[in-house]
Amino acid sequence: MEYNFLNIIDILGTIAFAASGAFSAMERKLDPFGVVILSFVTAIGGGTLRDILIGSTPVAWLRNDMTAIIILATAFITLFFGRYVKQFHKTLFLFDAMGLGVFTLIGLEKGLQLHLSPGICIALGTITACFGGVIRDVLLNNVPLIFQREIYASACIIGGTLYLLVQKTGMDDDVNAILAILVIVFVRIIAIRYKLMLPRVYENRM
Amino acid sequence: MEYNFLNIIDILGTIAFAASGAFSAMERKLDPFGVVILSFVTAIGGGTLRDILIGSTPVAWLRNDMTAIIILATAFITLFFGRYVKQFHKTLFLFDAMGLGVFTLIGLEKGLQLHLSPGICIALGTITACFGGVIRDVLLNNVPLIFQREIYASACIIGGTLYLLVQKTGMDDDVNAILAILVIVFVRIIAIRYKLMLPRVYENRM
Amino acid sequence: MEYNFLNIIDILGTIAFAASGAFSAMERKLDPFGVVILSFVTAIGGGTLRDILIGSTPVAWLRNDMTAIIILATAFITLFFGRYVKQFHKTLFLFDAMGLGVFTLIGLEKGLQLHLSPGICIALGTITACFGGVIRDVLLNNVPLIFQREIYASACIIGGTLYLLVQKTGMDDDVNAILAILVIVFVRIIAIRYKLMLPRVYENRM
Repeated sequence: MEYNFLNIIDILGTIAFAASGAFSAMERKLDPFGVVILSFVTAIGGGTLRDILIGSTPVAWLRNDMTAIIILATAFITLFFGRYVKQFHKTLFLFDAMGLGVFTLIGLEKGLQLHLSPGICIALGTITACFGGVIRDVLLNNVPLIFQREIYASACIIGGTLYLLVQKTGMDDDVNAILAILVIVFVRIIAIRYKLMLPRVYENRM
Repeated sequence: MEYNFLNIIDILGTIAFAASGAFSAMERKLDPFGVVILSFVTAIGGGTLRDILIGSTPVAWLRNDMTAIIILATAFITLFFGRYVKQFHKTLFLFDAMGLGVFTLIGLEKGLQLHLSPGICIALGTITACFGGVIRDVLLNNVPLIFQREIYASACIIGGTLYLLVQKTGMDDDVNAILAILVIVFVRIIAIRYKLMLPRVYENRM
Repeated sequence: MEYNFLNIIDILGTIAFAASGAFSAMERKLDPFGVVILSFVTAIGGGTLRDILIGSTPVAWLRNDMTAIIILATAFITLFFGRYVKQFHKTLFLFDAMGLGVFTLIGLEKGLQLHLSPGICIALGTITACFGGVIRDVLLNNVPLIFQREIYASACIIGGTLYLLVQKTGMDDDVNAILAILVIVFVRIIAIRYKLMLPRVYENRM
């Protein structure tokens, strides 16, 4: 049951990430092909980079039609009904936060399966969750958003660290995963609600 | 015989892609090393990304000196005789269109060998043909050209789809491949001749 | 003993590369997370790309905590004591040159182990040494520095070629490696000291 639950969040996250990629492409007036590619890259870029780094090939989306179909559908719906989709920006933000949480946990679990060390597992989770957005920004010729003071990757690192700590208490992995995802969603909501950012560090330092 | 024929087109396509990378680098006044790298990346970037995604490593160009030698030679000829090479721009366009066709079919075939689904195979073909240009544009700090309304990747998708449809009729694979490549070349010629582009989609939609 | 010696240079090179990535990120006012990522990417990007191209996965830094710890420490020290770290810019230049040498040799050796051809091995060495900087520049939205007339990759190509030539004389591999690294360091020092650059090639050629 938890498994199905995580699957549904995975799909919601993929939709949110794909919509974010499509909107970024549309803001730059890319053509429909560009919009589809940016949707794909944003939704599957992080997991693809993770699979490449650990050598899990063919990478996940090549073996799973459902992912491609969901992303294609999201891209075209965003393309043709962008104005209406935008009205759901709060829903999309929530999906995005949930996606961030699930993707972090999925990446972290892959690291654990390979017996990689805790820090590296957290890095893999963060890469899975955040690097689709990095590739999206690079393709659109922007310096990646997540390098610019927003609390985004930090949420993944916090959630991932908590998961590994709680795991030592012997708590059920599925329950622990859901708690970690909730923490990541919570950190994101708090960060946006109170406009929290990473501290400035440049005063008098260079 | 068909096999040799496809090999020759493969080489012509590699030359056209390498020349395109060299010209892009020269327009930005990169140094000779930069010109060589951009030639390489444009010519082998798509196939390399495909090999990495499906886990076919060491990637193709590492195991085949001939590719590297052809690209190096093209880069230096373009570098030193750029003015003269440019006179052959129509020839280079034709080589490029043929390369687009062959690379699409090569990528698609690799997907079929791995028993990936039809849509994914077409995606692999398109990646093989188009993503060398994407990496070239990213390295030169441009938003990738193929995301901007030109009919380029679309030609690959059309050709790849036709190939898979015709394959079901039981036609000989080599003949089918040559037909699909001709279709891709034809779509490219028509698109350039009549300045066809993907439709605008932004009126009143955001 | 030589092995430990190379290990130490490897660590010094990693520190220099990580510091270079951190400084680049700080110049663009990235947040602390961005600074850490740019440090990582600069230090391990080249080796990671090499491992992915040859299929040596999980890539090196996933299996070696020490690398991650050294990079994290360098990133934070640079972040908080940047002004002081900058005073050691000559030391960092020397570390960088040594890193360039060691990373070239490490990449080249991996190619030899896979029985790849000499030219391809030199390319792998150059990729290992130089492409961390390329990825750093792409993430910061700059055209990669090493494509712009500086003698940097050229030093790797010269050192790598010498190593392969001297190897045929039957010289001990460790001694040969140290000689090749010294040549690369020497070329870098001469290039910076006398402001040597690759020749201009654009007069009357386009």
